[in-house]
Amino acid sequence: MATGKVLVVMGSDSDFPVMEGCFKILKRFGVEFEAHVASAHRTPDRAIKLAKEAKDNGFKVIISAAGLAAHLGGVLAANTTLPVIGVPCKGGALNGVDALYATVQMPSGIPVATVAIDGGTNAGILACQMLALSDEGLSAELQEYKNELSDSVSARDQRLQDKIKDMEG
Amino acid sequence: MATGKVLVVMGSDSDFPVMEGCFKILKRFGVEFEAHVASAHRTPDRAIKLAKEAKDNGFKVIISAAGLAAHLGGVLAANTTLPVIGVPCKGGALNGVDALYATVQMPSGIPVATVAIDGGTNAGILACQMLALSDEGLSAELQEYKNELSDSVSARDQRLQDKIKDMEG
Amino acid sequence: MATGKVLVVMGSDSDFPVMEGCFKILKRFGVEFEAHVASAHRTPDRAIKLAKEAKDNGFKVIISAAGLAAHLGGVLAANTTLPVIGVPCKGGALNGVDALYATVQMPSGIPVATVAIDGGTNAGILACQMLALSDEGLSAELQEYKNELSDSVSARDQRLQDKIKDMEG
Amino acid sequence: MATGKVLVVMGSDSDFPVMEGCFKILKRFGVEFEAHVASAHRTPDRAIKLAKEAKDNGFKVIISAAGLAAHLGGVLAANTTLPVIGVPCKGGALNGVDALYATVQMPSGIPVATVAIDGGTNAGILACQMLALSDEGLSAELQEYKNELSDSVSARDQRLQDKIKDMEG
Amino acid sequence: MATGKVLVVMGSDSDFPVMEGCFKILKRFGVEFEAHVASAHRTPDRAIKLAKEAKDNGFKVIISAAGLAAHLGGVLAANTTLPVIGVPCKGGALNGVDALYATVQMPSGIPVATVAIDGGTNAGILACQMLALSDEGLSAELQEYKNELSDSVSARDQRLQDKIKDMEG
Amino acid sequence: MATGKVLVVMGSDSDFPVMEGCFKILKRFGVEFEAHVASAHRTPDRAIKLAKEAKDNGFKVIISAAGLAAHLGGVLAANTTLPVIGVPCKGGALNGVDALYATVQMPSGIPVATVAIDGGTNAGILACQMLALSDEGLSAELQEYKNELSDSVSARDQRLQDKIKDMEG
Amino acid sequence: MATGKVLVVMGSDSDFPVMEGCFKILKRFGVEFEAHVASAHRTPDRAIKLAKEAKDNGFKVIISAAGLAAHLGGVLAANTTLPVIGVPCKGGALNGVDALYATVQMPSGIPVATVAIDGGTNAGILACQMLALSDEGLSAELQEYKNELSDSVSARDQRLQDKIKDMEG
Amino acid sequence: MATGKVLVVMGSDSDFPVMEGCFKILKRFGVEFEAHVASAHRTPDRAIKLAKEAKDNGFKVIISAAGLAAHLGGVLAANTTLPVIGVPCKGGALNGVDALYATVQMPSGIPVATVAIDGGTNAGILACQMLALSDEGLSAELQEYKNELSDSVSARDQRLQDKIKDMEG
Repeated sequence: MATGKVLVVMGSDSDFPVMEGCFKILKRFGVEFEAHVASAHRTPDRAIKLAKEAKDNGFKVIISAAGLAAHLGGVLAANTTLPVIGVPCKGGALNGVDALYATVQMPSGIPVATVAIDGGTNAGILACQMLALSDEGLSAELQEYKNELSDSVSARDQRLQDKIKDMEG
Repeated sequence: MATGKVLVVMGSDSDFPVMEGCFKILKRFGVEFEAHVASAHRTPDRAIKLAKEAKDNGFKVIISAAGLAAHLGGVLAANTTLPVIGVPCKGGALNGVDALYATVQMPSGIPVATVAIDGGTNAGILACQMLALSDEGLSAELQEYKNELSDSVSARDQRLQDKIKDMEG
Repeated sequence: MATGKVLVVMGSDSDFPVMEGCFKILKRFGVEFEAHVASAHRTPDRAIKLAKEAKDNGFKVIISAAGLAAHLGGVLAANTTLPVIGVPCKGGALNGVDALYATVQMPSGIPVATVAIDGGTNAGILACQMLALSDEGLSAELQEYKNELSDSVSARDQRLQDKIKDMEG
Repeated sequence: MATGKVLVVMGSDSDFPVMEGCFKILKRFGVEFEAHVASAHRTPDRAIKLAKEAKDNGFKVIISAAGLAAHLGGVLAANTTLPVIGVPCKGGALNGVDALYATVQMPSGIPVATVAIDGGTNAGILACQMLALSDEGLSAELQEYKNELSDSVSARDQRLQDKIKDMEG
Repeated sequence: MATGKVLVVMGSDSDFPVMEGCFKILKRFGVEFEAHVASAHRTPDRAIKLAKEAKDNGFKVIISAAGLAAHLGGVLAANTTLPVIGVPCKGGALNGVDALYATVQMPSGIPVATVAIDGGTNAGILACQMLALSDEGLSAELQEYKNELSDSVSARDQRLQDKIKDMEG
Repeated sequence: MATGKVLVVMGSDSDFPVMEGCFKILKRFGVEFEAHVASAHRTPDRAIKLAKEAKDNGFKVIISAAGLAAHLGGVLAANTTLPVIGVPCKGGALNGVDALYATVQMPSGIPVATVAIDGGTNAGILACQMLALSDEGLSAELQEYKNELSDSVSARDQRLQDKIKDMEG
Repeated sequence: MATGKVLVVMGSDSDFPVMEGCFKILKRFGVEFEAHVASAHRTPDRAIKLAKEAKDNGFKVIISAAGLAAHLGGVLAANTTLPVIGVPCKGGALNGVDALYATVQMPSGIPVATVAIDGGTNAGILACQMLALSDEGLSAELQEYKNELSDSVSARDQRLQDKIKDMEG
Repeated sequence: MATGKVLVVMGSDSDFPVMEGCFKILKRFGVEFEAHVASAHRTPDRAIKLAKEAKDNGFKVIISAAGLAAHLGGVLAANTTLPVIGVPCKGGALNGVDALYATVQMPSGIPVATVAIDGGTNAGILACQMLALSDEGLSAELQEYKNELSDSVSARDQRLQDKIKDMEG
């Protein structure tokens, strides 16, 4: 088990497919986490309470995921000094541009560490990178993961060669 | 004095020029108001308290004004059943598109009545229109205001004729 | 029955799916409403007549729904002092950004209270919030609705836990 | 004098600089015109009356110029069978993109012939092109204008050579 | 037969579905037309020749339809004094915004009368409006068409009432 | 065989459908090429090595294809003096606008020759145009290809006539 | 002195005004830092070397700042397992939207923790939040900073009251 | 003198400041060039003639620069098999996004090698890179230029250190 715990707060359980990659990463790296649905607009008290108590409850990093006018990351960040990672979720007519702007364009003083639209996996990795600052084992595993990413490119390259050959056949 | 009171909440006093038109409208129509600076991110507790107590404090409508990742309207709306009007403020690299999306694209259940970017005056008028639903005097004054708007067009038309004549001179 | 009546004007009956949520809200809260198709461009006279006579016909709030160069909200607002709520409808190549801009960016003097693209449900709630200003029963029901929204998050949270468990199985 | 008259309707006299190029074109080609300020939102009745009576008043083409949620072109087009040319005016936080979308994205059945943002001059030329369909003299003058445009490029080319030489000096 | 002929130039026959509405309008109003595929980029000479000879060949209005970096309208307009209507076609990653900008943002001197993205029908109507300037019969038919548009709203309104009733059942 | 060799670097083999048109063009014109998967982010060393050694390995032009925050073109261009062509790939929530901006908006000193989103075919043609600068045979073949493009328009025109006739049937 | 060191990498010294807020934050919190100019495109080797050796050189967090096709954050993140914070810099015709997309839309596997356009101050705070995960003193200072932010709102509120009074005078 | 000649075609001499960097690069590398003003819309025949005769006139690369609905690059590319580089020029209400889309989104078959908005310098470098394919001397000079770019970063780094020191003073 890594030395640190991650709190994941999602605006809705319907964003699970976006965050599944995040959960997989946290599990792979043996990072303990809790995930909760809490909406900045439907259950603001619950969202704030989660953020306010996160540190005392042993969490080191908070990950939020929300779409549309995605205020969740900002609301959490306003109520904690822990780093808050924001995942803007695609959905609705604007395809996530609204969620991206609402998550990343935070005013001075209250940052939200924003990843790509629907970038759940990267949110998980970023959380691990933060935890690894005081966990050499986790740091080594991140390097190993990076190596695997790199190695996987060889297989992709091979598939590309095959596809090009198929053109010629 | 109109029967109703308006609460104006601004993310920063630097948005005063945007909201001056709002204050002028409220004064013209004799609508009592209080204006406060409260940030969804810097003073979330204060913003929430303002919203939660607004109704008991005699307010009927809340107007919010904020820029960038403008969460203020949403945070207020999450904590009251009063209608919340949102003014997205221009400012920052994205010229207010971020504030517009963050204000208007609220999820189902928690509306923010959004006006134009920097549309402080219209926020004031909209608030008056809501109050006028149970205040015939205010309703009549709104009609009078509408007539003035219409009348002012004659003067503009005259200025246009003058400018065109100047071209010919 | 709530004390107040809502007029819904839609640019086309094809926007019914967008506005079904609005009608459901109005019915749930016992708010009387009439809904009509009237186009700012195809039947301008009818749209204007609806707006001009709305107050005398006992309506307190007008909701408009239109897509593309959505002028309907503005045309209605130009012809009444009642508050006009605008629902920009997705549709066409620009996915509703055109309708959003055409609805929200009203010039000074004539506001349209704009909700999210395809935000029919929120238009209904906003109308109820306005009517509730002089209807304590409706106000209480809105608080009850807000509580339900909040409660529904518990079920969502439980579903999330289940989905995460399923990953582990 | 060309055989035809143009009606120019502007949302505000403040758009005069945008439309000055239009007036110059109409004067150059000897096209009679009237210009009026009439707002789709502040003086809807006047705008509609202008459109409805335009044909009977001897106008052949209508040019509209408006910014923000620019409904003017659409409102005029809804009330006439004359061709309506729309000039979206820059202004406000969105730099005219709102006016462009609100002018050009008209629903099926009611076109507005849209020119570039702030494209007053082109609106004038387009009006002349329409009038020239039944006015051979005007048609010849348009060809002459086109030739001048072409000729002016020689002077520009010379200036370019001079500037490049200056670099070398 | 109306007194005037329309030339339709399309960048590709694959845009036929977009322009079918245009052809229907022209046929309904008895306006003679020729339609040709000619690309500003693949067959520039042919496109230019069509434009240059259009007037002598008896055409009064040119309609162009193209997608992506839609230069066709501009290329045609550069080579004729006839009015050129541009239909930006959706298609490609940018959903027609590229075609809209490339069609409407013409420099001073060379207008293209732009209609909505995929607005083939409106291009046809606009062409008829231009021809009707010297064809009272066509003008009357346009008014009749406008009346039909208006009448069709009644049927839409009835369908809306039915749908709302179905909700209640 | 043309005198010159092209190196194609793709961020992922999943972009093969985008680049198939590129490979077809290179094959048609008898241009030798190698294609590799190499990611600016997952295998930066490999991407850099490919660019650094490209010239010595006999390549004359490099084509890159990547989506999202598409850094591949820039990373390659930073490590070679050969011309680098960039194909921004559609994919993800922003439909390729992110890839377009990340590819084309290169700072002064390090250009990437950018083609349309998903413009694999055009990347191949552009590479051939560069190689043809010192290969008259290839130049002649490009002219032949251009002629074919032009000729294909006749077939398209015929299909259009057929479709219009079908309307009449 | 906080236990941890921050590496700031800027694409150009011209972005100093954007990053001055970052340096001030790091100094206030006693966080040791080094700042270097290194371009992903002009000095790719240097940028990569900085990233590759950062961990061994005792850095815990990397902050990057770049404009236009801002590849710097991605290039650094590709070469380290340390968390990389990206500051998209406004500048150029697209006002920083290009830099935002190029920084935040990273592919799966390689996150860049993105803050607002020109959000240098927030990048500094976010870095401190990460370091504070293993530094209780720094954590307490962040809470103190948050309190100051909150307190500063009182002064802003007072200024607002004064400005409103001035309207009345 | 490099073995090859570049043709620069500008829509207007007012774009000279954008293209001055291009001319400087061409001069630095001793690349012979001619620059002409020719508009795709005002002098289409001249633009086409320049493109059609470019190869026979000894040119190897064409650079175009235009703003708004920037058709110039496409018009030139349609009339030559030489590589055409396009510089979208900022200007007008849309800040060059219109010119970027109109330049880069070329249909299949006719590429324009697009550089950044106002990227005149990079257009010059890209042209040199193409010429260098058959000119080893020029290739060596490009490498030397790249080294200078890299070296200049040291000076920038020193300035950054000075600025940070000034903060401390």
